[in-house]
Amino acid sequence: MAVRQQSEGLCESLAVEDYCIQPMVDASPPKWHLAHTSWFFETFLLKPYVAGYQPFHPQYEYLFNSYYNGIGSPFPRARRGLLSRPTVAEVYEYRQHVDAAMAELCQQADADSRADVLLRLELGVHHEQQHQELLLTDLKYNLGHNPLFPPYRMDLAAGDGAATEALPLSFTEIAGGVVSVGSGGDGFSFDNELPRHEVLLSDFALADRLVTNGEYRQFIEAGGYRNAELWLSDGWAWLESSRQHGAGAADGGLGDGGPLYWRQIGDSLCEYRLSGLQPVDPLTPVTHVSFYEADAYARWAGARLPREQEWEHAAGGERVLGNFVESQRLHPAPARAGRLAQMFGDVWEWTASPYGAYPGYQPLPGTLGEYNGKFMSNQLVLRGGSCATPADHMRASYRNFFYPSDRWQFTGIRLAADR
Amino acid sequence: MAVRQQSEGLCESLAVEDYCIQPMVDASPPKWHLAHTSWFFETFLLKPYVAGYQPFHPQYEYLFNSYYNGIGSPFPRARRGLLSRPTVAEVYEYRQHVDAAMAELCQQADADSRADVLLRLELGVHHEQQHQELLLTDLKYNLGHNPLFPPYRMDLAAGDGAATEALPLSFTEIAGGVVSVGSGGDGFSFDNELPRHEVLLSDFALADRLVTNGEYRQFIEAGGYRNAELWLSDGWAWLESSRQHGAGAADGGLGDGGPLYWRQIGDSLCEYRLSGLQPVDPLTPVTHVSFYEADAYARWAGARLPREQEWEHAAGGERVLGNFVESQRLHPAPARAGRLAQMFGDVWEWTASPYGAYPGYQPLPGTLGEYNGKFMSNQLVLRGGSCATPADHMRASYRNFFYPSDRWQFTGIRLAADR
Amino acid sequence: MAVRQQSEGLCESLAVEDYCIQPMVDASPPKWHLAHTSWFFETFLLKPYVAGYQPFHPQYEYLFNSYYNGIGSPFPRARRGLLSRPTVAEVYEYRQHVDAAMAELCQQADADSRADVLLRLELGVHHEQQHQELLLTDLKYNLGHNPLFPPYRMDLAAGDGAATEALPLSFTEIAGGVVSVGSGGDGFSFDNELPRHEVLLSDFALADRLVTNGEYRQFIEAGGYRNAELWLSDGWAWLESSRQHGAGAADGGLGDGGPLYWRQIGDSLCEYRLSGLQPVDPLTPVTHVSFYEADAYARWAGARLPREQEWEHAAGGERVLGNFVESQRLHPAPARAGRLAQMFGDVWEWTASPYGAYPGYQPLPGTLGEYNGKFMSNQLVLRGGSCATPADHMRASYRNFFYPSDRWQFTGIRLAADR
Amino acid sequence: MAVRQQSEGLCESLAVEDYCIQPMVDASPPKWHLAHTSWFFETFLLKPYVAGYQPFHPQYEYLFNSYYNGIGSPFPRARRGLLSRPTVAEVYEYRQHVDAAMAELCQQADADSRADVLLRLELGVHHEQQHQELLLTDLKYNLGHNPLFPPYRMDLAAGDGAATEALPLSFTEIAGGVVSVGSGGDGFSFDNELPRHEVLLSDFALADRLVTNGEYRQFIEAGGYRNAELWLSDGWAWLESSRQHGAGAADGGLGDGGPLYWRQIGDSLCEYRLSGLQPVDPLTPVTHVSFYEADAYARWAGARLPREQEWEHAAGGERVLGNFVESQRLHPAPARAGRLAQMFGDVWEWTASPYGAYPGYQPLPGTLGEYNGKFMSNQLVLRGGSCATPADHMRASYRNFFYPSDRWQFTGIRLAADR
Repeated sequence: MAVRQQSEGLCESLAVEDYCIQPMVDASPPKWHLAHTSWFFETFLLKPYVAGYQPFHPQYEYLFNSYYNGIGSPFPRARRGLLSRPTVAEVYEYRQHVDAAMAELCQQADADSRADVLLRLELGVHHEQQHQELLLTDLKYNLGHNPLFPPYRMDLAAGDGAATEALPLSFTEIAGGVVSVGSGGDGFSFDNELPRHEVLLSDFALADRLVTNGEYRQFIEAGGYRNAELWLSDGWAWLESSRQHGAGAADGGLGDGGPLYWRQIGDSLCEYRLSGLQPVDPLTPVTHVSFYEADAYARWAGARLPREQEWEHAAGGERVLGNFVESQRLHPAPARAGRLAQMFGDVWEWTASPYGAYPGYQPLPGTLGEYNGKFMSNQLVLRGGSCATPADHMRASYRNFFYPSDRWQFTGIRLAADR
Repeated sequence: MAVRQQSEGLCESLAVEDYCIQPMVDASPPKWHLAHTSWFFETFLLKPYVAGYQPFHPQYEYLFNSYYNGIGSPFPRARRGLLSRPTVAEVYEYRQHVDAAMAELCQQADADSRADVLLRLELGVHHEQQHQELLLTDLKYNLGHNPLFPPYRMDLAAGDGAATEALPLSFTEIAGGVVSVGSGGDGFSFDNELPRHEVLLSDFALADRLVTNGEYRQFIEAGGYRNAELWLSDGWAWLESSRQHGAGAADGGLGDGGPLYWRQIGDSLCEYRLSGLQPVDPLTPVTHVSFYEADAYARWAGARLPREQEWEHAAGGERVLGNFVESQRLHPAPARAGRLAQMFGDVWEWTASPYGAYPGYQPLPGTLGEYNGKFMSNQLVLRGGSCATPADHMRASYRNFFYPSDRWQFTGIRLAADR
Repeated sequence: MAVRQQSEGLCESLAVEDYCIQPMVDASPPKWHLAHTSWFFETFLLKPYVAGYQPFHPQYEYLFNSYYNGIGSPFPRARRGLLSRPTVAEVYEYRQHVDAAMAELCQQADADSRADVLLRLELGVHHEQQHQELLLTDLKYNLGHNPLFPPYRMDLAAGDGAATEALPLSFTEIAGGVVSVGSGGDGFSFDNELPRHEVLLSDFALADRLVTNGEYRQFIEAGGYRNAELWLSDGWAWLESSRQHGAGAADGGLGDGGPLYWRQIGDSLCEYRLSGLQPVDPLTPVTHVSFYEADAYARWAGARLPREQEWEHAAGGERVLGNFVESQRLHPAPARAGRLAQMFGDVWEWTASPYGAYPGYQPLPGTLGEYNGKFMSNQLVLRGGSCATPADHMRASYRNFFYPSDRWQFTGIRLAADR
Repeated sequence: MAVRQQSEGLCESLAVEDYCIQPMVDASPPKWHLAHTSWFFETFLLKPYVAGYQPFHPQYEYLFNSYYNGIGSPFPRARRGLLSRPTVAEVYEYRQHVDAAMAELCQQADADSRADVLLRLELGVHHEQQHQELLLTDLKYNLGHNPLFPPYRMDLAAGDGAATEALPLSFTEIAGGVVSVGSGGDGFSFDNELPRHEVLLSDFALADRLVTNGEYRQFIEAGGYRNAELWLSDGWAWLESSRQHGAGAADGGLGDGGPLYWRQIGDSLCEYRLSGLQPVDPLTPVTHVSFYEADAYARWAGARLPREQEWEHAAGGERVLGNFVESQRLHPAPARAGRLAQMFGDVWEWTASPYGAYPGYQPLPGTLGEYNGKFMSNQLVLRGGSCATPADHMRASYRNFFYPSDRWQFTGIRLAADR
């Protein structure tokens, strides 16, 4: 109930209009997120486990299915922003209907189904947390592409703190060998974190801090976006197409390209944050870059991106603390000194690892098997969570995944190197 | 002020969400129409004629410019539905701001500018009436493509009246000769209706009533949508592409194609109206067909579409009475008996005439010259107004124009024949 | 037989490779033209009128059908350049096979069918002449877009002659009134030139010469391609899209846009001709411009394009003499002095008239009815023939038609004005 | 010189027309392959190492650059089939020019550069062998999509041999552990096979034979192409888009989809081979399937695709013998019995491994670094070579890579399983 309430709390400052916009195909309207997370509980818990359950509306099974072909052909993703009905108020009623039925189910589930109900309930809660982060990043895309640059909230935690000069870039050396990765089975994990298994790593080094806006700006000013030899072939094609169409890397209006929300306003280099348009702070980690940009930056810097197993092995001993959504900053905090600083929170860290199945991977049985497994192609793994992730949603084995050109999440860069 | 109020009156039954949706690039959100019509007055009246006028918002000049390059590069049309801000409430405030300044200008315009002010005021009023019709048809596209088929209003004027059997199709014979067409200069007209000029017509005949749903259904059932020889080459290409993509002629989900809002619901052939989903009435004029469909139907029926000069000459003697927006039906009325019935109102009648300049045509001076003249290519003329047109907006010389594949207006078919 | 031989004569200088290329969807390979014109005779003459006719190859009916749905679904137009087989040699065998059967048919056609055979034979000959012109312009598109700029022939009639200074632009005044247009039935005409009928024209004036390269260059240098107010809305959209994609108006590599074959080579403004790359001659008529460009130029020059009836009325008294394909120049000749000079030949003259049916128009019966009638939408009429047209193919009533963005024909501009 | 001659030998049966066609963007014309492989030697050997070398043509550096941005912006890949010039004969002259200069260089290279020259010469030879295979598969795409289905050669090695009944599917069990993969440095390898390194494998099993046409047909008949739960999400999207556009999986005209060259001809299921159209042989390995299809098949069969390290470890002990281009069959041979049969030759075997950098990978220095490294995203590794690969081009560590939807190579399926 707390997680359900958090979804609604994120929307408190929204105008009704803000709930309805889908500014690009991947950025669903907040209204849709509120409905779909309810659909998830209705579909996977209430319908199978509540005898005589009355769905809130017969068409919602179709309208709010995201991608579960096992449930039927979903309403087309690209049209989620073209539904003025149900209204926002009706979606909130839907949530209440589902919440009430869930509360009753939790109290009344019989012994036979209780274990299954709890497993699916837990999954649904983590699913809702994922959509909380998407709700924020999708909304940022909407507001950040409106020429009025309206802030999401005026009361977000203040700026970039005490850092006043650039930190040197140091690396932590990490010994290779046979190490274990994947969820150890203590606490919740998604199926894609399983099974825990051994991998053989070479010695490597991992940067102690994230790449900053200041460094990234040097990369741009050194002609990084015009130098094909720094880029993967598909990345260069993406870049050239972006520039031709004023989209993608060139979306922000910087001629050559730049992070998604950077804007040249007169003489001033600004970025849109959820608190509104602000000057780019050179000491803060760069965010909203694609894998292609992260990879090109790393090559320019004479380094590389970490493999996901390296990242997980390095992070395994760290406590999961950081700038998560609870800090109400909704933006990365300035780069900090210290060993492997800011591994968790702030920005999702692109890894060099394509998203695939661990050896022995088994998707969940039935339609829930579509949750993760079918996306195991063409995407890259990101690690560590961001300033928009709920803190208790994160762990060292967590595998997020996006396409290499995606930039609307809070994505960032940590360098690695061979040893 | 009455016309300005009518725009807002049309929105009384809307939810805030309904104001924001752009279901296809041509169908702008109601919020945009309310703002753009105010922009028109602000741009062409208040800014040039009110000393020291304070625009409501500095960015609105850009955001709500439709297509006047003389004012600057407009905000991209395809993104009108991606602006959650300004909110609906802010747009209403904008309207009040403009209305107040207009009221003051009307009282205070000095002798020098008074004539110009009145001319532009009149133009702005007719402009707003055009957008009232578009607001309704754009909204219909939104609601009619929502799987929930929400009605726009529950209290629209009732059904299809007393007609109980199909009327025979008779023609009125009209003698040719040198006739005058174009606005006679009595009362307002757009520049594209001028100058009044003479044309030479052959003898012809014009159908006394519109083509009905029942007749159009026979065309479909006779394989009209599968018979290439009935279609213009571009029309056939449009049809094949529509079917391949489930859009255009095949948008309605009928396999071969059909009018835009026809839907096969189980065994029942229905159509979406602004009052909701209803059975297709065979005695009511068919509407929401493209020029290509109208042309193919006419060929199948052994007739042709009228030329715009024929239509105007025939209609010149008729009074401008009919089923306009004021009848609060918002749907064509059943076909009526009589000579040249339903020439005005009900449905826009496709003509065979490409939209072009009359001999001696002069666009308005300055940026207002972009109002009509620059669209004189690739479009066809439609005549007579529809059930969504304000009655006092219509006249025999009125030239509406749309692309041959456009179907979201209340478009229909009246047959003509050579004699 | 002479016309058939002319088609092959045009190909004498080609390499086998040149026969196979389709450099854009509208520009078919020469091999295809040679085969399709034979297909036309085979389909419309040999199969219906020669008892026991053996088609050359069973698949050619499908492969070389251009757009006659009555014959069956044609091989996709966009893939004409993807057929390495049949080989060029096989296509020439196909031509011989058809020619032999045609020769026999001409001698042996019985009395009953003789009239029909002759009509279709005549149509086929004119059809082949149309494809001779297309073969040249399609080939020009291929060679002119090859970075090597290979000439089609080295022995074309020499350059631009004696003109050494720009001619002033004079107009011939022409009285309006009721005039007759369309083919008078003396000699061959296509169905779209019929029936001859009366139209009412106002007084007008027609330029005595064509717009020259020098004038057109002034238009460009005056910013014509950057000034939206000169352009039709669809033309401006075409222009902006062209520039974004480096195609269309910007195809030639001139930044803002320019005629299709203009190329900036270092400091020199050149154009590709069928004789190779040459400097742009200021005194020669501009060619390879779209309707949109012709229309914008006319507006910039304070004039307009002629209506097709004006053109035909003015040209009706002229003899059909000019720079046609027989002059072996394959490029417009320099502008000449005199009354209504160069009305025929040199360049097709864009008119302001959308291509449509004359009053009382009847397409040919049967599948041949697809020849012209089904294209009567979205295209504009051009008049007068070009330097690639056979001289005996032309007449004052001849109506050519292309889409407003088409530029690969020898299209040009003659100005008109109201009086 | 032998390898250079083999390229030309592959073209002996071609008509001039066959050299020129680019039937899809990835399938370059044979003429281009012959020129580009010469360009490679000219660019990377002759220009840097032959003092005063005269390039054959100044524009060829641009025209025949494939993707080396370090050399300059290449001629657009999609237009390779739009160049009728240089002619085929000129390309052969180009080859002779390059060959002669190469021969001279080999004899005269001085001691300083000799090692470099030999390294680049060896690379160029392997490069040319890669293009020999592409030349055949690109040509197959051309001929196999021509409705005439012309054979490439009539004299290819005969059919499918003695196999008369389906072989049972057995697996070889392979123990995991720390194993070495990558080139051992004995003999030539590409940079992407280096460095040799250790990986940790779990126990696994590998099928002893390839999946056959008969098995694949069962998959289709069991509804495999209609069952979303078998497919990766991107694969399902590819499949639905293919069906909508009659391309990709539905290219072959089978309703639901099927291998690239399968064709339903009346009652007979055929496939296009380089020897012409023939019935699908159920005992022959299926070929021309995408990764998505291979992956879906494996899931349907209750198995999975092997990882590339598993494949290499299993194949490491096998001799590199098989049905390569030298067998002049140019089609997979029927499935054979035995342990790990047909690992080399016949078909490239899709692995589950995204193509990426080995730990410690270093691309070649300079522009040659673009050869392999920049393609390390979005592609999958294939192993083992095919019936179109030169035998001496193959080795166990060889990594081929294609996009998951690519099907025009001789791609096939070997199953693997966890143990």
